[in-house]
Amino acid sequence: MKSDKKDILEKVSWKPGNVLAPVPVVLVSCGKQELKNENIITVAWVGTICSDPPMVSIAIRPERYSYEIIQETREFVINLPSLRHVRQTDWCGVVSGRTVDKFQECKFTKQKALQIESPLIAECPVNIECRVSHSIPLGTHEIFLAHVVAVQVSSHFIDEKGRFGLDRCKLFAYGLGHYYSLGDMVDSFGFSVRKKDKTKRKKR
Amino acid sequence: MKSDKKDILEKVSWKPGNVLAPVPVVLVSCGKQELKNENIITVAWVGTICSDPPMVSIAIRPERYSYEIIQETREFVINLPSLRHVRQTDWCGVVSGRTVDKFQECKFTKQKALQIESPLIAECPVNIECRVSHSIPLGTHEIFLAHVVAVQVSSHFIDEKGRFGLDRCKLFAYGLGHYYSLGDMVDSFGFSVRKKDKTKRKKR
Repeated sequence: MKSDKKDILEKVSWKPGNVLAPVPVVLVSCGKQELKNENIITVAWVGTICSDPPMVSIAIRPERYSYEIIQETREFVINLPSLRHVRQTDWCGVVSGRTVDKFQECKFTKQKALQIESPLIAECPVNIECRVSHSIPLGTHEIFLAHVVAVQVSSHFIDEKGRFGLDRCKLFAYGLGHYYSLGDMVDSFGFSVRKKDKTKRKKR
Repeated sequence: MKSDKKDILEKVSWKPGNVLAPVPVVLVSCGKQELKNENIITVAWVGTICSDPPMVSIAIRPERYSYEIIQETREFVINLPSLRHVRQTDWCGVVSGRTVDKFQECKFTKQKALQIESPLIAECPVNIECRVSHSIPLGTHEIFLAHVVAVQVSSHFIDEKGRFGLDRCKLFAYGLGHYYSLGDMVDSFGFSVRKKDKTKRKKR
């Protein structure tokens, strides 16, 4: 593979911090209608953690309103926002649901989830319903590990071959204090091995 | 905020699975020179999990060679690859370090880390040194929670004001089996509140 000595980058040391990027930035909806505490919180400290069973994690500060709710209900929905929701995504990360109704202010529509009682955001192209299995306090944040119990995707983004086009959803990402749109699809998993077979490259 | 009923998306239910996107895709280097087991594994099940102390998680299948190594050494480096390394990133995710020397095959340069013994990849613009605090078996994957103990960034991407330009690094992301380049910077954290002050919008 291509690389040579000029590719070695000169480095400077930084204070240990959160520089992993790009990371997802998602709208987490939680709470229950009967408890009158339905809320939305923006989370960038989120990730997939297991393929089977499908599991995800989110990390939330214990002082946040949504933390109390999720500690109590042990469930939440990860809603993937489109670029058109970048303002709502930013806003739901800087104001507290203790003082405002974020669904109402963002003009988001609550929709009944399939497997849990938390509402999902109808306007988001992907909704991932999750049930908490572990919670671990770490410092400023506590991590919730959760099982994915239901997934819904917008039929609008499924093509005639039944494939879901992530690029058509206009998702975005986060890193070092900024939001970035998602660019072009570069290639697919396993391409480095598949192309080797086709082109008989001399050397890997 | 803008939104109306026509934004409600019709949904189809999918089998619960790993649809969170975009997620990071990184090169994790591990092992020790003295143990002659230095290796690289590509990980997309990775995330930031705590701001202070800064912490990250990676999830790895127990049958992977790097899993054994990290279980033993309790340390690893997250190296953020640039788009020019997308082939190496894909390849390090599909072959095993039990049978090949991935540093050599990828023409990557091992560099001494600052705080741990695992080597870092000199060609990657960001190197995050991590020490494991917890490991939790989940299913196909085991999650390692880890403290960030050192960070190095390429001086090449720091501008005259001392700011690190994530967009200049040409990072990329992963989602549903595909790699995506990172697009344009859209805005910065807190913009929805800052702009409100400036423009005196009637309603939030």
